[in-house]
Amino acid sequence: MDVVTFGETMLRLSPPGHERIEQAGELDVRAAGAESNVAVNAGRLGAETAWLSKLPESPLGRKVAAALRAQGTTPEVVWSDDGETRQGLYFLEQGGEPRGTNVVYDRADAAVTTATADELATEFVERAGYLHTSGITPALSETLEATTADLLELAQETGTTATFDVNYRSKLWNPEDARATLEALFPDVDVLFVAERDAKEVLDREGDAEAVARGLTDEFAFGTVVVTRGDAGALAVRNDDVFEQPTVETETHDPIGTGDAFVGGYLAARVDGGSVADALEWGAATAALKRTVPGDVALVTREEVEAVLAENDSGIDR
Amino acid sequence: MDVVTFGETMLRLSPPGHERIEQAGELDVRAAGAESNVAVNAGRLGAETAWLSKLPESPLGRKVAAALRAQGTTPEVVWSDDGETRQGLYFLEQGGEPRGTNVVYDRADAAVTTATADELATEFVERAGYLHTSGITPALSETLEATTADLLELAQETGTTATFDVNYRSKLWNPEDARATLEALFPDVDVLFVAERDAKEVLDREGDAEAVARGLTDEFAFGTVVVTRGDAGALAVRNDDVFEQPTVETETHDPIGTGDAFVGGYLAARVDGGSVADALEWGAATAALKRTVPGDVALVTREEVEAVLAENDSGIDR
Amino acid sequence: MDVVTFGETMLRLSPPGHERIEQAGELDVRAAGAESNVAVNAGRLGAETAWLSKLPESPLGRKVAAALRAQGTTPEVVWSDDGETRQGLYFLEQGGEPRGTNVVYDRADAAVTTATADELATEFVERAGYLHTSGITPALSETLEATTADLLELAQETGTTATFDVNYRSKLWNPEDARATLEALFPDVDVLFVAERDAKEVLDREGDAEAVARGLTDEFAFGTVVVTRGDAGALAVRNDDVFEQPTVETETHDPIGTGDAFVGGYLAARVDGGSVADALEWGAATAALKRTVPGDVALVTREEVEAVLAENDSGIDR
Amino acid sequence: MDVVTFGETMLRLSPPGHERIEQAGELDVRAAGAESNVAVNAGRLGAETAWLSKLPESPLGRKVAAALRAQGTTPEVVWSDDGETRQGLYFLEQGGEPRGTNVVYDRADAAVTTATADELATEFVERAGYLHTSGITPALSETLEATTADLLELAQETGTTATFDVNYRSKLWNPEDARATLEALFPDVDVLFVAERDAKEVLDREGDAEAVARGLTDEFAFGTVVVTRGDAGALAVRNDDVFEQPTVETETHDPIGTGDAFVGGYLAARVDGGSVADALEWGAATAALKRTVPGDVALVTREEVEAVLAENDSGIDR
Amino acid sequence: MDVVTFGETMLRLSPPGHERIEQAGELDVRAAGAESNVAVNAGRLGAETAWLSKLPESPLGRKVAAALRAQGTTPEVVWSDDGETRQGLYFLEQGGEPRGTNVVYDRADAAVTTATADELATEFVERAGYLHTSGITPALSETLEATTADLLELAQETGTTATFDVNYRSKLWNPEDARATLEALFPDVDVLFVAERDAKEVLDREGDAEAVARGLTDEFAFGTVVVTRGDAGALAVRNDDVFEQPTVETETHDPIGTGDAFVGGYLAARVDGGSVADALEWGAATAALKRTVPGDVALVTREEVEAVLAENDSGIDR
Amino acid sequence: MDVVTFGETMLRLSPPGHERIEQAGELDVRAAGAESNVAVNAGRLGAETAWLSKLPESPLGRKVAAALRAQGTTPEVVWSDDGETRQGLYFLEQGGEPRGTNVVYDRADAAVTTATADELATEFVERAGYLHTSGITPALSETLEATTADLLELAQETGTTATFDVNYRSKLWNPEDARATLEALFPDVDVLFVAERDAKEVLDREGDAEAVARGLTDEFAFGTVVVTRGDAGALAVRNDDVFEQPTVETETHDPIGTGDAFVGGYLAARVDGGSVADALEWGAATAALKRTVPGDVALVTREEVEAVLAENDSGIDR
Repeated sequence: MDVVTFGETMLRLSPPGHERIEQAGELDVRAAGAESNVAVNAGRLGAETAWLSKLPESPLGRKVAAALRAQGTTPEVVWSDDGETRQGLYFLEQGGEPRGTNVVYDRADAAVTTATADELATEFVERAGYLHTSGITPALSETLEATTADLLELAQETGTTATFDVNYRSKLWNPEDARATLEALFPDVDVLFVAERDAKEVLDREGDAEAVARGLTDEFAFGTVVVTRGDAGALAVRNDDVFEQPTVETETHDPIGTGDAFVGGYLAARVDGGSVADALEWGAATAALKRTVPGDVALVTREEVEAVLAENDSGIDR
Repeated sequence: MDVVTFGETMLRLSPPGHERIEQAGELDVRAAGAESNVAVNAGRLGAETAWLSKLPESPLGRKVAAALRAQGTTPEVVWSDDGETRQGLYFLEQGGEPRGTNVVYDRADAAVTTATADELATEFVERAGYLHTSGITPALSETLEATTADLLELAQETGTTATFDVNYRSKLWNPEDARATLEALFPDVDVLFVAERDAKEVLDREGDAEAVARGLTDEFAFGTVVVTRGDAGALAVRNDDVFEQPTVETETHDPIGTGDAFVGGYLAARVDGGSVADALEWGAATAALKRTVPGDVALVTREEVEAVLAENDSGIDR
Repeated sequence: MDVVTFGETMLRLSPPGHERIEQAGELDVRAAGAESNVAVNAGRLGAETAWLSKLPESPLGRKVAAALRAQGTTPEVVWSDDGETRQGLYFLEQGGEPRGTNVVYDRADAAVTTATADELATEFVERAGYLHTSGITPALSETLEATTADLLELAQETGTTATFDVNYRSKLWNPEDARATLEALFPDVDVLFVAERDAKEVLDREGDAEAVARGLTDEFAFGTVVVTRGDAGALAVRNDDVFEQPTVETETHDPIGTGDAFVGGYLAARVDGGSVADALEWGAATAALKRTVPGDVALVTREEVEAVLAENDSGIDR
Repeated sequence: MDVVTFGETMLRLSPPGHERIEQAGELDVRAAGAESNVAVNAGRLGAETAWLSKLPESPLGRKVAAALRAQGTTPEVVWSDDGETRQGLYFLEQGGEPRGTNVVYDRADAAVTTATADELATEFVERAGYLHTSGITPALSETLEATTADLLELAQETGTTATFDVNYRSKLWNPEDARATLEALFPDVDVLFVAERDAKEVLDREGDAEAVARGLTDEFAFGTVVVTRGDAGALAVRNDDVFEQPTVETETHDPIGTGDAFVGGYLAARVDGGSVADALEWGAATAALKRTVPGDVALVTREEVEAVLAENDSGIDR
Repeated sequence: MDVVTFGETMLRLSPPGHERIEQAGELDVRAAGAESNVAVNAGRLGAETAWLSKLPESPLGRKVAAALRAQGTTPEVVWSDDGETRQGLYFLEQGGEPRGTNVVYDRADAAVTTATADELATEFVERAGYLHTSGITPALSETLEATTADLLELAQETGTTATFDVNYRSKLWNPEDARATLEALFPDVDVLFVAERDAKEVLDREGDAEAVARGLTDEFAFGTVVVTRGDAGALAVRNDDVFEQPTVETETHDPIGTGDAFVGGYLAARVDGGSVADALEWGAATAALKRTVPGDVALVTREEVEAVLAENDSGIDR
Repeated sequence: MDVVTFGETMLRLSPPGHERIEQAGELDVRAAGAESNVAVNAGRLGAETAWLSKLPESPLGRKVAAALRAQGTTPEVVWSDDGETRQGLYFLEQGGEPRGTNVVYDRADAAVTTATADELATEFVERAGYLHTSGITPALSETLEATTADLLELAQETGTTATFDVNYRSKLWNPEDARATLEALFPDVDVLFVAERDAKEVLDREGDAEAVARGLTDEFAFGTVVVTRGDAGALAVRNDDVFEQPTVETETHDPIGTGDAFVGGYLAARVDGGSVADALEWGAATAALKRTVPGDVALVTREEVEAVLAENDSGIDR
């Protein structure tokens, strides 16, 4: 097992095209969750991956598991009785500017919010090369905050590299609570992914991306810090080395999940023996490809990622 | 205002045709709720109707209101802030036998569960000829149990005829709790609709439909009791008179909402000045038409109901 | 050219499944018209066919022509300027009983209503073995009444066998007007198709199907009269011989166009050198197959018709 | 009642995506009409609105009414018997350049073309703050020309502010006829909306937008004249004051109805007590949002309009 | 590993509803193959299953693998380079009688036809409780005939119970060839499933189902022979005991895959420790449920199978 | 007959929007082939056209023929028995950059690969003004290489102008084989269309477009050589005259078939009596329009092409 991820996966319900929910006669259904997105994305590029979580034993929970299996990761889930808990949902309207993309979460009391380390298949954490989760997970419930801490600690104990994406969601908590919770988790994290804006607004960092990365490394002893900057690319600091990666240009059909594609590509490259620089390249290519694919995940192949990298290389004439 | 109804309306999400949710790429979305179904059904046949409830101020809540307006009733709703409460949902798989039709409720913590008589537009109850609600409403929360009692009492005080459909739902409560709650409400109810099976299993009645109707009338002083018996038709007792109504044959494309169509047709006839016998006929015709229409409501016209009745009359050569 | 038909073809707009137009978000579009249906049906079974008519030069008119070509007949049409005339439409709701199937015509002022014999490609009438039209055509406008008479007369003069389906439509005219108009056309008709009910209610005939056929033959000197009786089969009288044909059992997915499929099968058999008995068999088989196919036409192959006939033969052990 | 509008609403039938009608298997159906668009748009932003018109009593007419109710305005319609009149339709192909967007009107003899002031619910005109109609309405029939004049006169008499959008449609009439008719109506109009191009080509005005507005004000004594200039924004003259409003940038998914969204936003702001400058801002924001939404109307919320304005403000740093 | 199956899985392309391919604008896509169907069906009822095969490395091959994973079995496949081999397809028209269901195979030169025992993951055969394949597999190519023999022999050697469904397909070979090939494989088969008609027409057996089963057992030393008889139920002979199982009544929405559902249910029960009688019951229940689900596989749960059995038990009052 | 074309037409199966095949539940089906595209495109602009080929007698083959007839060309095909040969298919994913558009051919052993000049309706070649085919055809099989040579020779003999589009497909053959085969055919070709890239990489030409055209003319005695250069426009050399044509700007919804639209427009203009310069203009306009229409063909009208030309003229000629 190369990568195991932990978090919530929702069903995403969205009207076709640019319709509003109010006018839609039907909604497309897909599975979507930051951590399962990463597992799927890494899995498609060659890593052996699993996703730990809890789902209701219902057609909806089964749909989530089926979708993840189809896309190429293994759901290792605790099934809770339907009726006791529910399946988290989110409703999505893909508007253009100035309407924007509109997300309505309906994830309160989802089965996963009651998941404890005791009931999860933690043997996969022990066995895996990487454990990945994000700041969304501890934001979902107190139980999940504790479970996240338990899993990260277990990873630390068993030599599994813990990777963590800050992924701040203002609809789930406020910056102060987020900062307190996340900073308590950071000591057990090896690799941190953080959007430049979250670094500033949530983690209260100042300066440019490099300063942010160095500061975080200094304070929390991360092995690697990756700062993502949207169109401005990404930057990583590892062992005092700085790596910069421009964003790959893309035609966007569905922007949701771009960050998870970046992380998935990064992890797949690392699992494959790639350097941090390679991993940033894979992350950027996977993220670009993702934006051409409807849904939250990068339904792409390793060959396609390699083709993007080859093209981009030639593009700059190396 | 002829008829005002009170209760929860959900969004109904169902795969096309006979697909299972697990295999569906999209779900049809419709608004559906026992009491708004009745309002719509009666409204289409000529009654002026409104529906009292509470909805979240969100695309989902707005979709419910839009659908009801489109279908011909007026939603008089309290809007609660999105985020605080949610929109009730139900997922539906239309299987054939032996798979059966599968309903997954996801209605816990819906906005309506917090609705109090104070915040609802109770002036419509005062003004209306009929107030209709069902046993589903008090089953949804303690608040709604109290609110149901308040509205029925208000109807009693203001001379509005209160009609009530027992509508027992085993996924919401058990027969004992239901019986206790409902019997506490019955003194303020004028017209009771009850399925023969609910009369036996929930209200603990014995004997045939007529015995059930007479017994309930005696005990709770109902003006009218209507016992529905599926394919076996319906029977009403009013002022010691007994009225029987056979079921109208139909080709079923969507059975959900048949009972609400019956009640809607019944009320429309009464509002229109029809006798109990007329009302049973309208109820039976509307129920039959409903089963030909996808969705929870009888999207039919008064002319179509009249045509069914004319046909049925001629069919038995009167 | 074996068969040329003349009449109006509309676009048929219908909601998917059993939805009502009021609730539909989209409508299926197909081309549909009694006479082009016959041309298509006969054409698919081997006859070389064309359809004479007039269409507006617009996306809608082009759609009709494209659909007919796709299905296997050649539209020989006069194109009228878009803006001057319109494309006839009909809206269809496929309900089950007791709702019934609901048709809303929107065909007034269609381009075809102005078609004169002068502008139509009448050389095809001269060249064809059969000219087919129906009672719908003269009902559409006074111009078309004259044009129908002109074409039938032309057929008579040029030795083309004129076939005519009474096809009474109560939404277009009343029985009296229909009778007067049709009887004026009958002297130029060789083969008459008439539903038993139309024979009685429109043509004012009495007695059983045979009596009807013999009576009409006597009065108007038809070569052949075919009386169709729905589930009771069909009966033909020709040269004093009587032929009976039972209906072929079928699973109905779309009943519209059954009669046109019967005529198409009949004509294809006759063109192919079959006897009247053969033609009735082909008609019955094509009509049965039609009912399994969505849309107005029998999108079937000659092999399928032959398979039905073989099966039916063996079924009755001949 | 804040705003009542008067005009024709059609069913709009369009293939999905960029398909041509000729190749489409199904057509999306929506309700669409300049004046009902305005009522819906203003209604969604807070105004109480109604739409006066005439519809056929048919599934098509009912669909129009249902759609408008769903979207948030009240159709106050005269129902004419199905069969006598028809429902206006328009067919739409959304092509890209150089193909362009193609509209095929099929609105001749629509029910509304026979609507007289006598039969319409003119009490709503008396009661309303604003009466809105457009140059499309008098172009549809002589009856409607008279009815438009009658309603504007009634508004004048009862102190209802009459607003009018020139909305020239070259498929309905020519500039000369339009000018004559419109100029006869102008004396009863308070607020005129006119596209710069229509001002020049139809109303025969010269000069820049301000000159046009001032000239029209001088000649016809309008209270306010609003000249819209596409991407160049809008300009209003009222009481000698000039207000300018830039266009809000937008990603266009459906351009139809942009002008009606502008008017709807404008009226909603005025009803809400806003100044002409506010109203222009609301108009511009609503128009921009409209273009992101499929269909003719701006299915948006007041919060979304306010968010656009807030964003735009900050964008220009005020 | 409880059950491993071996064979071809195609993509099934079918028009929606009852449309013909000729008129369809889009085709539904699903994965379908007798042996993967069995793996999926058994897997959903609790067995751990895998499917051995060969697929092209292409979007089509990946789709097959994704679909099987989603449905609950593990594809253990050899991937062949896209371009060298192709993905097998079949086109399906679901007609009603007398049109019938029409299948067009397009499976020649599929990747699987080149699969040899050497390249397949035969360790799964060694490890599994059951190896299942069918008469379709050796009919596809000479290579597959040899591979089937190799796998059955391997099962025999390693103590894996070999089950085999005769599954005669007249579009692939003729009865004589089939009989010769199958009889050569039978010595390595433990459990034989055969339709009564195939027993007669392909295996040249006479007598009733029991005679057929006994005769086959005597000649080929099968441990168990199960004869399926459509609506007439199934019969098994094992160790001289005879077991009979009636068919469970069902509402059919998609009949394809009924036999595979029977086998899947049977195997799941056996894996679960059930008797042959239990296995026949599970087979019958799963087959009945299958017919309510669109697609080739029984997307059902163990709970649903148990509910059918409980219902059926009570239905016959045991 | 103005133009007859010869080649393979496939069914094109593509997921809706930008979905990947792996995630698609349904695939759009259209007919598509370089030479039938040209026939359709020229046919829609006024030329009388036919398409020679061979199709399997199956629902798939019939679908191809129906689609071509619908779009406006006449398929003159040899029908081969279903089962013997298959229908060529291609699967298409419309990705955006950097994913690109992905084509999976599944055309091996298509019926057309066995088509010989003997069985084809070569009388249409004799009768036609133009015979058009492309480099795809001889690449499909040795039989087709011979048949292509035969038809070109026949055209030469009968005075039919032979036009040929190099259309190199790297998935079908390599540049060396292509060059050898094509150069053997060139002596019978009058008008050559070649993409600048193919001229260089396949035909091994050097220099700019004019040099390429002159060089090819000199070597193979072409009457006309048209070099297409994507966004850079097209250039033709004829009788030592050089004609240049800029590309018409367009909004691209489906780029497939642009080259065939160019050729179709060119031929239609020539048939219509236009000069080479006119033909290049028509080609450019048709190609631009094509890119706005989903599918492989330019479903446009002559009026639309003329409108583009008028616009483009005025655009640059003031």
